[in-house]
Amino acid sequence: MKVVVTGGSGFLGQRLIRALVERGTLQRNGEARAITLITAVDTMRAADGLSEARVRYVQGDLADTVVLAEAMSGVDSVFHLAAVVSGAAEADYDLGMRVNVDGTRALLDACRAQPAPPTFVFASSVAVFGGDLPEVVLDQTIPAPQSSYGVQKLIGELLVGDCTRRGYVDGRAVRLPTIVVRPGKPNAAASSFASGIVREPLAEEEALCPVGPETRLWVMSPAQAVRNLTHAHETPSAAWGRQRAVSLPGLTVSVREMLDALRQVGGEAAVRRVRFQPDERIAKIVYGWPARFDAMRAQALGFTADTDIESIVRVYAEEHAR
Amino acid sequence: MKVVVTGGSGFLGQRLIRALVERGTLQRNGEARAITLITAVDTMRAADGLSEARVRYVQGDLADTVVLAEAMSGVDSVFHLAAVVSGAAEADYDLGMRVNVDGTRALLDACRAQPAPPTFVFASSVAVFGGDLPEVVLDQTIPAPQSSYGVQKLIGELLVGDCTRRGYVDGRAVRLPTIVVRPGKPNAAASSFASGIVREPLAEEEALCPVGPETRLWVMSPAQAVRNLTHAHETPSAAWGRQRAVSLPGLTVSVREMLDALRQVGGEAAVRRVRFQPDERIAKIVYGWPARFDAMRAQALGFTADTDIESIVRVYAEEHAR
Repeated sequence: MKVVVTGGSGFLGQRLIRALVERGTLQRNGEARAITLITAVDTMRAADGLSEARVRYVQGDLADTVVLAEAMSGVDSVFHLAAVVSGAAEADYDLGMRVNVDGTRALLDACRAQPAPPTFVFASSVAVFGGDLPEVVLDQTIPAPQSSYGVQKLIGELLVGDCTRRGYVDGRAVRLPTIVVRPGKPNAAASSFASGIVREPLAEEEALCPVGPETRLWVMSPAQAVRNLTHAHETPSAAWGRQRAVSLPGLTVSVREMLDALRQVGGEAAVRRVRFQPDERIAKIVYGWPARFDAMRAQALGFTADTDIESIVRVYAEEHAR
Repeated sequence: MKVVVTGGSGFLGQRLIRALVERGTLQRNGEARAITLITAVDTMRAADGLSEARVRYVQGDLADTVVLAEAMSGVDSVFHLAAVVSGAAEADYDLGMRVNVDGTRALLDACRAQPAPPTFVFASSVAVFGGDLPEVVLDQTIPAPQSSYGVQKLIGELLVGDCTRRGYVDGRAVRLPTIVVRPGKPNAAASSFASGIVREPLAEEEALCPVGPETRLWVMSPAQAVRNLTHAHETPSAAWGRQRAVSLPGLTVSVREMLDALRQVGGEAAVRRVRFQPDERIAKIVYGWPARFDAMRAQALGFTADTDIESIVRVYAEEHAR
């Protein structure tokens, strides 16, 4: 089977591709199938792309129909991770609409052109929730995004749902929590600090925290995100029913709890490298996000959460030991 | 003040324009302002367009930036009624996406180019609801559209909400019930029959009813729709808060009750002109629509409903007496 991963050069995309290569197979329509080709589509070239016969890299924009036609030819399954992140989509409305809405649409149109409907896993976000939220977000809570990123992700969910209903794809949208700890550099996501306050101190660098210590986030580790993306692909279509989007289970952690975990793993010296420097623009976006869910439907579908933040930090430290 | 009405040649658009001309003023930001120009934008020319100095007609597509720039120059308020209707959007996915999504987006972009954010009234639809609905739809019910039309209207709502939050427009989206009785010809709306089974018999023509007599609809008269559209414009922006969309109050009526009303107004002979002829395609869409709402938020915002179906039929018969 042929698999396309958009945002395939990104950190999560790379991690997903490595996991797919290691597995070698994916369940699709109740049948384990050998993965013969993984096409990573991204505007950027991966810094450390896998040298693997089954993995090819296509560089270009999703809005470019030539790029897309090449990448999508004969595709069986799509993992759509490419996106302009929250902070960037807020700063540049047109860019966010072009990539997050038009890109998703172009990808769905390319699926529709295939002889059979591909399985389509869409990386949505808990940022679809916002506004006056209950203390615990339920599957019955109305998504009311208060950021352009959240609006664009919700539009993506709606399009995936409609294209599934119409038989163009077999779609599944998973609302990812904030992923910690991301390796690499800070990015334009409003949640970038959540990884930064662990990653930078462990690399003996200073980190700025733009929100207060009691700020709570709904988080998931990269390994868990990859497991859940793959699981989203492998669940039977019928189990989803009409509602093709689901909020994933996660962990509620405060910044203080993250720093406690950092202390356990990296010592007091690491924690002292974090400096609180309030940033209104970031805080306004992050405070609008939900921090606690009762992800009943996801659990019924077999999705899983990390056990605790200290394990997440410890695994990161081990994977990225200097 | 300058007002733009998209879909201005349509039946509701024409009716709204006549009402605006008669009123002469509109409340905007808490101040009654004289309407100096109403621009009706539509792909079609109105058959019986108003000959009125303050009304001009611009013919063309919303996706045409030249048309849009001309129509929108110096605009203060927009009533966005233009849409590909439910049956047509279901039959032609690309057409629905182009008009209902891209058209709305182009209009919002044109608003954003104005020196001050226009008031933007968006005609949404109860078709944003679908799937496994409760007996009574509440303001807390998640919109889960099961038609491309409903998905596209919900995307419109989301864009209006985001553009309001960003300060590009002062947006208000009203979810219209099925409008009965529409004059003129049947159209491609799945709900077209709901007007047809009254309109045709009163004109001594036969009408086909594609759904059973116990099928219930959530309805509103054209006069009431125009009142509520105008009211949506005149409510203070602050009263809407973050949630810029609302389900309007209406009447729950069954096909049988509509025929009873027809009997009262047009006699038994009129009712005998209605023939039941099941149509799976129509039924599938219509049965998915909600038939009863508790429109508490709309009532708090001052929106109103018709009193009874017989009055609606009677007013129609009087207005369109042969």
